Amino acid sequence: MSGSRYGAGAPTRPPGTGSGSVALGSVALVGAGPGDAGLLTIRGLRALESADVIVADRLGARQVLDQLAAEGVELAAEVVDVGKQPGHHAVPQDAINALLVSLARDGKRVVRLKGGDPYVFGRGGEELEACRDAGVPCEVVPGITSAISVPQIAGIPLTHRGLATAFTVATAHDQIAELGGGRDHTVVLLMGIGTLANSAITLARGERGSECPVAIVEDGYGPRQRVTIGTLETIAVQAARRGIRSPAVVVVGDVVTLSPYAPEALRTRKATQL
Amino acid sequence: MSGSRYGAGAPTRPPGTGSGSVALGSVALVGAGPGDAGLLTIRGLRALESADVIVADRLGARQVLDQLAAEGVELAAEVVDVGKQPGHHAVPQDAINALLVSLARDGKRVVRLKGGDPYVFGRGGEELEACRDAGVPCEVVPGITSAISVPQIAGIPLTHRGLATAFTVATAHDQIAELGGGRDHTVVLLMGIGTLANSAITLARGERGSECPVAIVEDGYGPRQRVTIGTLETIAVQAARRGIRSPAVVVVGDVVTLSPYAPEALRTRKATQL
Repeated sequence: MSGSRYGAGAPTRPPGTGSGSVALGSVALVGAGPGDAGLLTIRGLRALESADVIVADRLGARQVLDQLAAEGVELAAEVVDVGKQPGHHAVPQDAINALLVSLARDGKRVVRLKGGDPYVFGRGGEELEACRDAGVPCEVVPGITSAISVPQIAGIPLTHRGLATAFTVATAHDQIAELGGGRDHTVVLLMGIGTLANSAITLARGERGSECPVAIVEDGYGPRQRVTIGTLETIAVQAARRGIRSPAVVVVGDVVTLSPYAPEALRTRKATQL
Repeated sequence: MSGSRYGAGAPTRPPGTGSGSVALGSVALVGAGPGDAGLLTIRGLRALESADVIVADRLGARQVLDQLAAEGVELAAEVVDVGKQPGHHAVPQDAINALLVSLARDGKRVVRLKGGDPYVFGRGGEELEACRDAGVPCEVVPGITSAISVPQIAGIPLTHRGLATAFTVATAHDQIAELGGGRDHTVVLLMGIGTLANSAITLARGERGSECPVAIVEDGYGPRQRVTIGTLETIAVQAARRGIRSPAVVVVGDVVTLSPYAPEALRTRKATQL
């Protein structure tokens, strides 16, 4: 297999694509993980340390940079914030793509630091394509996805012998409408708070049923971290009562019963099933 | 929320559970990632550096320890190999659980180093339960799962605007039999080589159809890395012809067309769909 063992596909540096006499730079799409600098990969940290410019998301990525600074890790790179700011729109994806290409053409080693993993709802594929189309060398450094690591802090594994042997990760409500499976097929919803009531009704209509356990983990690795546990029948009302807000990860299935935050009634049910 | 921000649930150290005068040790379930030391997390590396004993899987975990040694990272810990050895059975899960508890009761700081993520088909939940039941403090350090990072080295994101907005990860063939969705719902099969022909037939019967693209990535971060791309109709024959072997990750869906290893015919189809 050609190409880097570590990057995505085969980054190439075609001749004559540099701008004038400036040597062509490069782009690394780095997964920052869920917002905890300790969960950055070693390769991700090295990429940040050798970067000239870091183009950072607000969610996850910015938190990680702040924590690294607090721990005394000095990064020489200039940081460009392209995440959604309160009261402002996010920088459009096209503009981010153009920025990455433009910086690399100016000879910069660019790190595009993205929350979670660049390839899981991260639009990393689009940024890779933009770089590739522009002849800019681009590699992908995986990150710890929130879809797995946020349930984990509530003590919920996505699979567990006797409780779940498959899991689905989705954002859009229409994707779960056609999803089969029972309570042993875990469902993780990202960005699912706005459509929670509809999603719960849809999932309850299937084999899972209205008694199926649900957990919501808000602000996984942030200061507002909170775990709410109920069932497909109760969760929408609980979420409204507790004023649950994004970012939050929703987990549906019998694995929720493993959480130490699960009420005794749910945990007992698990014991009889095992 | 009580408990560690970083661990799973609330590790506790009940009084009087140490054995005699020896102080109780601890267990960290650490995800080693897909077999590349650069993809270990910073927290995972620190846990290894401060461990007295490392209880390691063969797949992924052992590779990472060997790479760290080759890079001059000296670990003081004793390494106990519990992975499946050629010609030997794997150490049974119950025995691993008992070993972790026993070592911690002897006062050791134990790292249980597992390939990928401990909570994605890693049986980490069982090990956590065993520790918790024994009163041994236990934390979970997430790892980069092969389900996401192995497709990535073939240039395949699990989600991509216009191509896929959900993904399912499964091992067992019976879990995909009930799985709905079309080619925009990516399916990742782990340990799926033995049942590949059946799985392909099952998935082709649904909305995905026999023309749905499939990629197989063998030995993701190892020396036998190889990418094979076809369709649900052709993949089983291709796999047999090429002598495809485990470990391998199978990816099904239109995201496969983004791989630079995809044949031109598949890649053209993607261009017209976007």
